[in-house]
Amino acid sequence: MVTRMSSLFLRTLREDPADAELPGHKLLVRAGYVRRAAPGIYTWLPLGLRVLRKVEAIVREEMEAIGGQELAFPALLPKEPYEATNRWTEYGDNLFRIVDRKDAQMLLGPTHEEMFCLAVKDMYTSYKDLPLTIFQMQNKYRDEARPRAGVLRGREFIMKDSYSFDIDQAGLQKAYDAHRDAYIKIFDRFGFEYVIVQADSGAMGGSASEEFLAVSPNGEDTFVRDASGYAANVEAVEIPVAAPVEVTAGPAHVEDTPDTPTIETLVAALQADHPRADGRPWTAADTLKNVLVMLVHPADEEHPQGRREPLAIGVPGDRDVDAKRLEAQVAPAQVEGFEETDFASHPTLVKGYIGPGVLGTERASGIRYLLDPSIAEGSAWVTGADEHGKHVLDLVLGRDFTADGRIQAAEIREGDPSPSGTGTLTLARGVEMGHIFQLGTKYAEALGLKVLDENGKLVTVTMGSYGVGVTRAVGVIAEGNHDEVGLVWPRQVAPFDVHIVAAGKGEEIFAGAADLAARLEAEGVEVLYDDRAGKVSPGVKFKDAELIGVPTILVVGKGLAEGNVEIKDRRTGERREVPVDQAVEAVLAEVRSTG
Amino acid sequence: MVTRMSSLFLRTLREDPADAELPGHKLLVRAGYVRRAAPGIYTWLPLGLRVLRKVEAIVREEMEAIGGQELAFPALLPKEPYEATNRWTEYGDNLFRIVDRKDAQMLLGPTHEEMFCLAVKDMYTSYKDLPLTIFQMQNKYRDEARPRAGVLRGREFIMKDSYSFDIDQAGLQKAYDAHRDAYIKIFDRFGFEYVIVQADSGAMGGSASEEFLAVSPNGEDTFVRDASGYAANVEAVEIPVAAPVEVTAGPAHVEDTPDTPTIETLVAALQADHPRADGRPWTAADTLKNVLVMLVHPADEEHPQGRREPLAIGVPGDRDVDAKRLEAQVAPAQVEGFEETDFASHPTLVKGYIGPGVLGTERASGIRYLLDPSIAEGSAWVTGADEHGKHVLDLVLGRDFTADGRIQAAEIREGDPSPSGTGTLTLARGVEMGHIFQLGTKYAEALGLKVLDENGKLVTVTMGSYGVGVTRAVGVIAEGNHDEVGLVWPRQVAPFDVHIVAAGKGEEIFAGAADLAARLEAEGVEVLYDDRAGKVSPGVKFKDAELIGVPTILVVGKGLAEGNVEIKDRRTGERREVPVDQAVEAVLAEVRSTG
Repeated sequence: MVTRMSSLFLRTLREDPADAELPGHKLLVRAGYVRRAAPGIYTWLPLGLRVLRKVEAIVREEMEAIGGQELAFPALLPKEPYEATNRWTEYGDNLFRIVDRKDAQMLLGPTHEEMFCLAVKDMYTSYKDLPLTIFQMQNKYRDEARPRAGVLRGREFIMKDSYSFDIDQAGLQKAYDAHRDAYIKIFDRFGFEYVIVQADSGAMGGSASEEFLAVSPNGEDTFVRDASGYAANVEAVEIPVAAPVEVTAGPAHVEDTPDTPTIETLVAALQADHPRADGRPWTAADTLKNVLVMLVHPADEEHPQGRREPLAIGVPGDRDVDAKRLEAQVAPAQVEGFEETDFASHPTLVKGYIGPGVLGTERASGIRYLLDPSIAEGSAWVTGADEHGKHVLDLVLGRDFTADGRIQAAEIREGDPSPSGTGTLTLARGVEMGHIFQLGTKYAEALGLKVLDENGKLVTVTMGSYGVGVTRAVGVIAEGNHDEVGLVWPRQVAPFDVHIVAAGKGEEIFAGAADLAARLEAEGVEVLYDDRAGKVSPGVKFKDAELIGVPTILVVGKGLAEGNVEIKDRRTGERREVPVDQAVEAVLAEVRSTG
Repeated sequence: MVTRMSSLFLRTLREDPADAELPGHKLLVRAGYVRRAAPGIYTWLPLGLRVLRKVEAIVREEMEAIGGQELAFPALLPKEPYEATNRWTEYGDNLFRIVDRKDAQMLLGPTHEEMFCLAVKDMYTSYKDLPLTIFQMQNKYRDEARPRAGVLRGREFIMKDSYSFDIDQAGLQKAYDAHRDAYIKIFDRFGFEYVIVQADSGAMGGSASEEFLAVSPNGEDTFVRDASGYAANVEAVEIPVAAPVEVTAGPAHVEDTPDTPTIETLVAALQADHPRADGRPWTAADTLKNVLVMLVHPADEEHPQGRREPLAIGVPGDRDVDAKRLEAQVAPAQVEGFEETDFASHPTLVKGYIGPGVLGTERASGIRYLLDPSIAEGSAWVTGADEHGKHVLDLVLGRDFTADGRIQAAEIREGDPSPSGTGTLTLARGVEMGHIFQLGTKYAEALGLKVLDENGKLVTVTMGSYGVGVTRAVGVIAEGNHDEVGLVWPRQVAPFDVHIVAAGKGEEIFAGAADLAARLEAEGVEVLYDDRAGKVSPGVKFKDAELIGVPTILVVGKGLAEGNVEIKDRRTGERREVPVDQAVEAVLAEVRSTG
């Protein structure tokens, strides 16, 4: 059926919506694709739903091509399976919780590992039933603290989530590789630039994991890459532990450094009062900064608010602790600031002058103390002497102090040496579009998913979990495919194949346009026909066509009198006249092109 | 792609599931179509999802054929619009409510009148924008007190809900009629017996309304019909008010009727102690029974628990008050029992002997008093005398007592005269599958949806609301299409077109079956191929095929050696041998038949 603008449920807006930040989001709202219903919750208007369905179809096709079987779990779920895996508490405020009329606790599913695992447990019993890949494409819910950028980070969103079930790691690796290939096909078809990065496993538990990030300066995720092909989410960067160095420093010595509670004041004071013998100026990189944070572990019976554990992190003074990297390392614990009251209850900590002398589970403070891996055994540092106004110099790791371990929490900088061993890192930003993840046996163990192996022995099944942000993809495609006047859809996901504009007042123009619309429709082309009469000028129609962004625009206007119509390519802006009797063929050629 | 049983995520069960009551539900679970995730909440396994998608496609096709435009509202909704229409409170415990991390109150949408109304309000301004019909097919949520019968009455379910917007009643009537026709087409295609009945409007407000009920002895709704074509939901039956009769009774007189608190004891006492002069025996129908209930109105600021209002209902003593009819009449108020404590606080009510002497807002009790419409002005009754052990006889409506009005709350019985004026009523049961409803301006007024009319005057838009139970339809189709050994899908909604069984052990059998599967698939036929080898016997495969219920079963077995295969019709059980080289054509003929 030809869709006619005169009756399409659509109202384009000339003004940007007040609550939209990103250009693609603004255009999706202005062009009538989506509409905000509540913070982070969107309605898909007819145009938007058409794009969404095409995105879904692409994902479905590629999932079926690797043998994925589609099913549909409910969104409203019982609490118990999520309690068994501890995610009921680990998800914290991100989970939408519901109490039903019978006082049963329920949740809106943020992801469905538990439910899939239980279904397989109920239905399958033998290694012969495996491998299995099952998936769904369905509404998910997360009560994001900061929903943003329209459909890019919503609280209700569609995700394709699939899960693989295998008898062993070799099977899991095969399923993982198949998903990786399928995702490459999917994202290639979506038409945006993306990068595959090593990912932190976050709250999901497990090991091998990669993310597909759409490269975008507005992305929320930072990733690094080097020239050799290495790429990683910043949370997943593993700085190698520095090789031990020969000790060259003399004995450690405490010095008066009054009024030096910051690295900056300390470096200035060192330079003024304790210049180095060899004349090299002191820098922040010579100092060891000890940062305190408070971890809040997931609630349990003993700690209904969650156990609070102080943590000290030692990093070179020229670097900060990166909040996201730290969070990834300590998850599922949450990170909070170390407050005045916390200092009060740890009197051995002298604010501004905290040093390894009191840090560590075996030392006076009893606080766990973890060092940045760049701090080499044998290297000497200036750091707090645990007395007000004093620092210790030439303090050597291994000789004069130790820590409880290492932590990958210091900020990563452009130009840092790459963990791959070749070259340096560059930093960029991206939006997480897909995540593939070898869960291993974590969920299967928690929920008791075992099958009989070839020898009749019960073995725990190994799982993979794989997600694609489907509604998010529409947002990312919009961010990556627009110009100043509107959206420019890649052909595979465009709401229509061709947008026909009847530009003029004459009846013959409308008759000619309607005829072309019908003939194209008969060829299987999806047609949006701007048949608006009355006061809607050609100028308004052209503006709307550019805003909506259908890849091919067919203008039936004054030229029709001479037997011509105009075909315009929305992306390149190219226009060409074609004889009306060749118009159908010309449009078909465009539609069937890969452009 | 040919779906192979060896890898299909399916495990058929030989035993009925413990929690299933109805035969169709049992079979849907046993054959691996659905799986319970929580009370009233189901997972759609691959087979079930295929049927569900076909049902959706039929509904979508017919909605688009009447110009409906699809969009998708969220399921998680803000409270405010539902507060504006008062449904936030009216829905009571049926609503799933959520408080988000910022303490905003939200709900899971049970139906979306408010959201559609607001979207149109934001986007449209003129009568020229109308008429408009928009719809969605989407998860809905209701916290049913008694979820039952699997997907027949779930707490998470898919509904197609559409809404029409018109400038006047004539437009609304047209949209209503178009939906009525579309629904007839939809339900005809689903392949179950249904009836269109006049419906009570329930909590929706508004006027003209019809329901499409699937006729089923297990249905929850009772409906009536007569031979003339009249049909109505029992809640919607309007008994005409009886025409006044001439008063023939003498003056009312109070008599001692000790120990007659029930109609039965009263009739016996009348017969024994007060026989009628003309010898006609007393029956329960000669008595007027006054039933007391407590209405609980929706909560408001003054009555956070809801205002409680006692109500007295006078019905002939041979009939009960029908709870569903009463509920429909008093909605959104809820009906509760009249308890001992309520009697205690209304001392004028003498339990077992309550009569019109004290009932009515103007009388001693102050309790509103409504009569059944069958009670004619001028007719005489035996009823309570408001004194213990006493009744009044020859009490004439209009002469000796009055009431505050009428109420349609008495039970309807098989054989009652039809309100249509012709013949008598028969009663039957059904499952509500569709509901079409002229909402009128109720929602548009509450939410301020007005447009400019031809004269530039603001007028309130008039709305219709139209639902189809999509997941429920799968359940109803299953209830209506099965035999003792399994499901028997109507062709239009069957999960596959043909189920090929490789029955035997020889390699040539599997090769032949696989070849037929591939050739049928190439013809666009949806094939389920039972390729299970090893210990799965032909008998097990036949049993599974009958349980799953694909309409055409193609058996490749021993006959293949002579060049034959067998085609079996699942519904009729008919089998016939066809030469293997004609098998594709023969199956195509079956698939393309309407059977």
